[in-house]
Amino acid sequence: MGMLKVSARSNPSATAGAIANGVRESGKASLQVVGPRAVNQAVKAIAIARGYLATSGVDLHFTPEFATILIGDQEKTAILFSIRPRYPLLREEEE
Amino acid sequence: MGMLKVSARSNPSATAGAIANGVRESGKASLQVVGPRAVNQAVKAIAIARGYLATSGVDLHFTPEFATILIGDQEKTAILFSIRPRYPLLREEEE
Repeated sequence: MGMLKVSARSNPSATAGAIANGVRESGKASLQVVGPRAVNQAVKAIAIARGYLATSGVDLHFTPEFATILIGDQEKTAILFSIRPRYPLLREEEE
Repeated sequence: MGMLKVSARSNPSATAGAIANGVRESGKASLQVVGPRAVNQAVKAIAIARGYLATSGVDLHFTPEFATILIGDQEKTAILFSIRPRYPLLREEEE
């Protein structure tokens, strides 16, 4: 899964669905976030995604790091979130 | 260590120092955060604390969850961050 971009206008539930799918399919998800309101939306989305995955016995944790990105010709400081499961995922075909 | 409260006016470097101390001393740190700007300060502080602890061979991850708290007589939705090290800490007296 590629890098998801989260903005101040992102819907946390929809973002949470994308995070949960990324973790189920490839064992991780990555978010790129610029600005305080977008950080807030991203954190909410991760809290919601924990609920989506709880019934699969999976919990999520994440690490933030700073990154400099170009938007147009302006340099901006973004925060990158790497999201990983805390417990190994059961493969659905094995259930 | 008790729950650290992070506000929109918290200094991320000072908060990062408190997180790093909490993780060094008791293996974990907890933050209580209300409002989008405070969430942003908390995430920045965690990113900075990762740098503070990197020379000790420790990385941090965290999990967010929602909580309802009382401020005065108003119910507010807060986000709680549980922060834990990714790798076991070396005790300094053993070095």
